Amino acid sequence: MIQPHAVWADVEKLRETAPLVHNITNFVVMNTTANALLAIGASPVMAHAAEEVTDMVAIASALVINIGTLSPDWVDAMRLAMSAASKKKIPIVFDPVGAGATPYRTNTCKLLLNAVRPTIIRGNASEIMALLNEDIKTKGVDSTMSSISAQDAAKALAIRYQCVVVVSGEIDVITDGTDVMLVKNGHPMMPKVTGMGCTATALIGAFAAIQPNPLLAATHAMAVMSICGEMAARHSAGPATLQLHIIDSFYNLTGSDIDTILI
Amino acid sequence: MIQPHAVWADVEKLRETAPLVHNITNFVVMNTTANALLAIGASPVMAHAAEEVTDMVAIASALVINIGTLSPDWVDAMRLAMSAASKKKIPIVFDPVGAGATPYRTNTCKLLLNAVRPTIIRGNASEIMALLNEDIKTKGVDSTMSSISAQDAAKALAIRYQCVVVVSGEIDVITDGTDVMLVKNGHPMMPKVTGMGCTATALIGAFAAIQPNPLLAATHAMAVMSICGEMAARHSAGPATLQLHIIDSFYNLTGSDIDTILI
Amino acid sequence: MIQPHAVWADVEKLRETAPLVHNITNFVVMNTTANALLAIGASPVMAHAAEEVTDMVAIASALVINIGTLSPDWVDAMRLAMSAASKKKIPIVFDPVGAGATPYRTNTCKLLLNAVRPTIIRGNASEIMALLNEDIKTKGVDSTMSSISAQDAAKALAIRYQCVVVVSGEIDVITDGTDVMLVKNGHPMMPKVTGMGCTATALIGAFAAIQPNPLLAATHAMAVMSICGEMAARHSAGPATLQLHIIDSFYNLTGSDIDTILI
Repeated sequence: MIQPHAVWADVEKLRETAPLVHNITNFVVMNTTANALLAIGASPVMAHAAEEVTDMVAIASALVINIGTLSPDWVDAMRLAMSAASKKKIPIVFDPVGAGATPYRTNTCKLLLNAVRPTIIRGNASEIMALLNEDIKTKGVDSTMSSISAQDAAKALAIRYQCVVVVSGEIDVITDGTDVMLVKNGHPMMPKVTGMGCTATALIGAFAAIQPNPLLAATHAMAVMSICGEMAARHSAGPATLQLHIIDSFYNLTGSDIDTILI
Repeated sequence: MIQPHAVWADVEKLRETAPLVHNITNFVVMNTTANALLAIGASPVMAHAAEEVTDMVAIASALVINIGTLSPDWVDAMRLAMSAASKKKIPIVFDPVGAGATPYRTNTCKLLLNAVRPTIIRGNASEIMALLNEDIKTKGVDSTMSSISAQDAAKALAIRYQCVVVVSGEIDVITDGTDVMLVKNGHPMMPKVTGMGCTATALIGAFAAIQPNPLLAATHAMAVMSICGEMAARHSAGPATLQLHIIDSFYNLTGSDIDTILI
Repeated sequence: MIQPHAVWADVEKLRETAPLVHNITNFVVMNTTANALLAIGASPVMAHAAEEVTDMVAIASALVINIGTLSPDWVDAMRLAMSAASKKKIPIVFDPVGAGATPYRTNTCKLLLNAVRPTIIRGNASEIMALLNEDIKTKGVDSTMSSISAQDAAKALAIRYQCVVVVSGEIDVITDGTDVMLVKNGHPMMPKVTGMGCTATALIGAFAAIQPNPLLAATHAMAVMSICGEMAARHSAGPATLQLHIIDSFYNLTGSDIDTILI
């Protein structure tokens, strides 16, 4: 069971401490990601040059790695940043966008995850399946299977990398390989917004910056994501207004909203 | 004459099949492009590394190339992707953003178009003129002449590259060098939204993925673009709300909207 | 004192002449920046390849340099573009995003500013302090001190580089090292929108393209920014709607709005 008051306590801590979240993410979502992090209360920074990622990690409270529009230079910087974050013992959240779509994506994920243990991995069902079993082929960046069907794969992946794994979807599955948390809120229009998963990953980074238990950090972030998605959908005519209103909802979220909406 | 039912049939086919559209496009429009493609019913993916573009083309149903923020690495990847798409015989839609503004843009267009025949080229009047006659100089990325005035240039360009050419503007001109289709819908605030032409190019990619006749694919995409622009403008206070509402309109578009609004 | 009619005269001149503003800016804000420039009446172009920046400067009326997501290739292009702009005597507006956060950012600023004198520098208080005194450390890209407290630093920086310096914040400070202009409009939600400072920098570029006095250009741009921020906040439920409505406000701004709202 997810405790509404514990979710809210993390939101309050985020807003009070405004942790710096360092993102090496994709071109498609940079604006939305930065706005989402600011709206929930974190302080986002985007920096991808090998010349500075180590120094940026040194002042950051969490590192978010997202391979959505990867290329060799960026992958090198991701590896450097992950190593620095690991040494500094700040949380590392990894988003394997499009894993399984091309060998380059799948291999890059393997390279990075084998080099540095992440704290939390978040993907859709297809991506999580592809990380576990490289024979799985995915169709681009959109999932073709349900999140619940990937629950066993998520557990196995969590055990392999000794981390927390989040499978987002209609029901979000969060597991450390043993315990499983489910987030049942959300709205069917959310997958029609590009990078909604990337926003979730960034939020997980923000929560992990202030919540030392990664299973709780990931669960609370997904709960906030799903609750705000529902709040936003109430007055959204389509996916573009939904993308907008979910960010406003992060900004306006109250403890009472969480109490009322969380299933 | 554009057939409303044929436009609608393509929209329905898009929504049913959700074709994967591979975009190598510019940094300014990546988010809007991905959201537009999702909203109309396609599945967008952005991938620009030489290490993966060939593999991404292998699972895609259309390739969209847009040179808006070009650099040598990206141009190399565009060429690789175009070659792979040509071999696989999936449609290639090319957007010569800012052709004529700098020799690098004009020369890159020439290099790419001479290496691989595109299926459809879409630009504004200045860009189409600059592609045809490299002595034409343009002012940045905004057109300084009317689309109708570029009709002959469009025909000549279509003949040169044996492709369909779209000149977007107040009236959109679509030609295969012989036949000419005109889309007369649209709204004067549309050019005040950045990357509206890039969105049109991406939509053309989506329609070409499911409509084998490129003249019809381009015409239907431009009709949807213009109709949705009109629908969005009805409740938009300025260009930013227009950018938002046009994406919601792609999502909500019905056959009845097309019947009612198409001129 | 800021003259409302002089602010308005510059807005009108912008809309009449639509100057081409060449931006080498960061990935996070490219879409918002381009839309802001279009909405106020300028013609934006984004181009960052060393292969074309000199040619793009040759047709531009102002150059905006923003190091928000810098890397060596981009810094090389920035230097080339700044040299070309300096030779052509068009205004150069420089935004030291995150100066002080990493040595790479601080050193890059020093390198560029020492190579080519900018016309106007705009940053938040932390960034301006870090440019003046490299021992200052900042927290990512968000300021941790008030703009007014950086007034002396701004004057010293303006004298060092013989340029105008803008410190944006609750009160915007604009100085050429001798005179100081203050813009007291604005809204507390504005710092919750990512890249609002980058938008301000781009607007300064647009105003500098048509207003030869850089102190006035920067002041008028900041006045428009702050007035439109207030107009937008009236009907914004959160930072995402604020980001949207401020662009619509640029588009709809009238002389009467300036008269009524400017403090």
